[in-house]
Amino acid sequence: MSLTRSHWHWGYSERLPDEGAREALGGMVEAFLGVSLPPPCALPDPAAARIAASRRRVPEGFEAIVTDAPTVRRDHTYGRAWRDLYRGFVGDFSAAPDLVARPRHEDDVAALLAWASREGVVVTPYGGGTSVVAGIEADRDAHPATLTLSLAALNRVLGVDPIDRLADIEAGATGPEIEAQLGPFTLRHYPQSFEFSTLGGWIATRAGGHFATRYTHIDDRVTAVRMLTPAGVWQSARVPASGAGIDPVRLVCGSEGTLGVITRATVRVLPRPRWRHAASLRFEHFHDAVEAARRVAQSELAPANCRVLDATEALINRVSGADQASVLLLGTESADSDPIADLERCVALAQSAGGRLIALKRREDDGAREATGASWREAFLDGPYLQSALLTLGVLVDTFETATTWSRFATLDRALREALHEVLVRTGGAGHVSCRFTHVYPDGPAPYYTFFTRIAPHDPLGQWAAIKHAVSEVLSAHGATITHHHAVGRTHRPWFARETPAPYRAVHEAMRRALDPAAILAPGVLFDRE
Amino acid sequence: MSLTRSHWHWGYSERLPDEGAREALGGMVEAFLGVSLPPPCALPDPAAARIAASRRRVPEGFEAIVTDAPTVRRDHTYGRAWRDLYRGFVGDFSAAPDLVARPRHEDDVAALLAWASREGVVVTPYGGGTSVVAGIEADRDAHPATLTLSLAALNRVLGVDPIDRLADIEAGATGPEIEAQLGPFTLRHYPQSFEFSTLGGWIATRAGGHFATRYTHIDDRVTAVRMLTPAGVWQSARVPASGAGIDPVRLVCGSEGTLGVITRATVRVLPRPRWRHAASLRFEHFHDAVEAARRVAQSELAPANCRVLDATEALINRVSGADQASVLLLGTESADSDPIADLERCVALAQSAGGRLIALKRREDDGAREATGASWREAFLDGPYLQSALLTLGVLVDTFETATTWSRFATLDRALREALHEVLVRTGGAGHVSCRFTHVYPDGPAPYYTFFTRIAPHDPLGQWAAIKHAVSEVLSAHGATITHHHAVGRTHRPWFARETPAPYRAVHEAMRRALDPAAILAPGVLFDRE
Repeated sequence: MSLTRSHWHWGYSERLPDEGAREALGGMVEAFLGVSLPPPCALPDPAAARIAASRRRVPEGFEAIVTDAPTVRRDHTYGRAWRDLYRGFVGDFSAAPDLVARPRHEDDVAALLAWASREGVVVTPYGGGTSVVAGIEADRDAHPATLTLSLAALNRVLGVDPIDRLADIEAGATGPEIEAQLGPFTLRHYPQSFEFSTLGGWIATRAGGHFATRYTHIDDRVTAVRMLTPAGVWQSARVPASGAGIDPVRLVCGSEGTLGVITRATVRVLPRPRWRHAASLRFEHFHDAVEAARRVAQSELAPANCRVLDATEALINRVSGADQASVLLLGTESADSDPIADLERCVALAQSAGGRLIALKRREDDGAREATGASWREAFLDGPYLQSALLTLGVLVDTFETATTWSRFATLDRALREALHEVLVRTGGAGHVSCRFTHVYPDGPAPYYTFFTRIAPHDPLGQWAAIKHAVSEVLSAHGATITHHHAVGRTHRPWFARETPAPYRAVHEAMRRALDPAAILAPGVLFDRE
Repeated sequence: MSLTRSHWHWGYSERLPDEGAREALGGMVEAFLGVSLPPPCALPDPAAARIAASRRRVPEGFEAIVTDAPTVRRDHTYGRAWRDLYRGFVGDFSAAPDLVARPRHEDDVAALLAWASREGVVVTPYGGGTSVVAGIEADRDAHPATLTLSLAALNRVLGVDPIDRLADIEAGATGPEIEAQLGPFTLRHYPQSFEFSTLGGWIATRAGGHFATRYTHIDDRVTAVRMLTPAGVWQSARVPASGAGIDPVRLVCGSEGTLGVITRATVRVLPRPRWRHAASLRFEHFHDAVEAARRVAQSELAPANCRVLDATEALINRVSGADQASVLLLGTESADSDPIADLERCVALAQSAGGRLIALKRREDDGAREATGASWREAFLDGPYLQSALLTLGVLVDTFETATTWSRFATLDRALREALHEVLVRTGGAGHVSCRFTHVYPDGPAPYYTFFTRIAPHDPLGQWAAIKHAVSEVLSAHGATITHHHAVGRTHRPWFARETPAPYRAVHEAMRRALDPAAILAPGVLFDRE
């Protein structure tokens, strides 16, 4: 079956929970919130979408790769933040770009950048379109012409070297496209957007892979990068490591499209694991599960997986045996040798913090790729569909994440829950908050919060902004980062500016001027151009 | 016994091999090279050093922290490259700075930067004075006034957090100063300059720790950094990880003093290991030892140590049982649980590549700090003294290092040995080359070469430059990095420029202009100012 990307909700239209499933979902939320929901809305008609008119004709000579077709522009208007889902749901595509380009190869990208620099056309690099921070939505009113540059056609794995275990991959390749072309190897990088987001997007936003403790951010897997800029090609050396000057790869990681268009990268790949062991432990108290995670994170054993779920998360994720308590999920993997001893040691550390073993599952196979549907990843990747489905039921559910030190976590957690409760009740009449650790480090966790409330009927976007503001202020006040893996885009700008060193903005602007003198690339992302 | 830093050779005067030891060393080299050496020279008299006169008076108000005393300026003139040793040996201190500052605290640093910016005085940040790439030697002729800013007084560990396992440390602290203040913890970062080099110097130059496979460069241990710049304080957030924009820590790593003066950093520390196991294996052929290292590096077991020594290195380092063959040294460490199984698995991998086990030593203790003299580190840290001692015997011995992929190593190795042999014989009449891997990565090794020859009596500095040029050209032609952990400084500039992306220099210059508009900081390092 061929699948269609929805014009407004997360992912494929065919995978949105159907009417019956949505109804059940609504019932669950009503129980959680103790309120009743309005009758569900009908799904929006794509044909009824109000799309801003294009203000720019397709430039001569670019007819093969540039379009002003309204439906294409509609489908490249927004990322997939709740704010984007909502606007798409109500048919508001007033932020649509004037043009969409789909370069076939690097030369097209270079030609487009040269043309846009000459003409002063704003360029938005576009990977999978899954930004949750308005990273791909240029401010139409601030610029006479906007073009969204999709890397979708640059999706090949150019080579896999089995001796060096390196792969050269085009930046527009999505998670599944990469994995399908890697033969016996895997990049093993699983952001929740895995199905749609791209290698270039991951590097640009310093994406975090899930179920990964030793290697989390994509930064740690990239050994060379190629980025086209209006000032020339940024190609770093293909070496395992270097101590020569400021790392040219790290200057690209996190640049979020502001310095150039990433077209290619060299990444480390791994043989697919043969052993995949997993364990779950139950903790009466959340703070004991946190302590257990700290002990595991500081053991240097670096298990493939180390996740904490509070009682609500454990319930929602149907962790068997959680029994209304918190849970620690552990996993070890290897393609080389049985890592059961490491898992057992991690379990012992967790038990020393008060954990009770629920289950320990050993698994060994021939390292074959996991079948679709059979995978532990399936449920995880389906998560975002629920958010879209709940929107149609009048429920605002969203997530945010951060990283902080162990010693600061308890205070931060309390403050976040308090602030959230206040703003959810104030704007939606009720609210619910849950927390998990998606990643842990020796010095602290990356907590991930999910919350839901009723959509405020008169001003849903104002409600969403009020919530984002409330939690971000708490993060900032407690010295926690504004984002561990969701990036900055335009949404997180005020708090990003507070978090960075005083002269950081001037340095970033200086880099932009050097690489993008015409100020066409992703203006408004990270900072405004000066 | 209190020790004195030598005015010309590596380290402490008292630790230079004595006359008898130097004589024995000379005999060894004669046997290796098959030539006879000239009679040994007398050690230079510090009082006979020719020190450039200061062109600048101590500025008013800075009398407590700035000096123009000739001996102090002499002792801050050079790093410890062979070229530096040679010039010091013959009493040539014509590159001495006009002034030396020793700030007592950050406010002094800020005041000095403000004054120097106003007056156009060139500032050279100075940690331990161990640069081997002319990183701390400003070009006197190019600037009317030069000041060397020593961080020696900023040497405190400000705090150690046992919950987060983080330490806040001033940038001027040396390896031993840090370890002495960390209580039960260790930073476990062992560059060969450990005794003298500083945390700030390590960060500025992206230093590599030895006997460390999982964490190699200091970059991986720093979670926050504080750098004073003429444009303000560059203080990054103290968080375990972040995905917010280009990492402000990574913008400082490798900046080599060109962007500011690092004054402080937050680093991850570890409990001292309780288990320290080690194994050695013998390989008839060097390339089999290389293959063994690849298998270990790609196993994901990340042993604490994985070093390859070719037959000469094994001989020089007196590895017992090497018996004129190559050697692989392996080690696993843990403070948490016995890592013997990991070591055994690494040994099995090495055996599968043709290795024969020489020895496997298990060691468990209470994690107490190792006593001086008893340590495996001792011989390693003494290495540089031999280079200084050999200089007095008319022998030029030096090292260089790189990193490349596994698939490119054999060809690179051959080309390097050929080029070296040619230039050593041409300039010194004979030569010897050996190779070890100081670090390994899944995608390739960091080979480290040692070579020696007779000093060309009429032009030793020209000889040294010819050798440096010959090997660097080979590295560059084979796509290997110009430095894995020795930094760029001024010596590696031409090849660094070739290795970096085309627009890299413009970006670096833009960053410099933003942070150091008066162009006072380390001009000539990495690139000239434009």
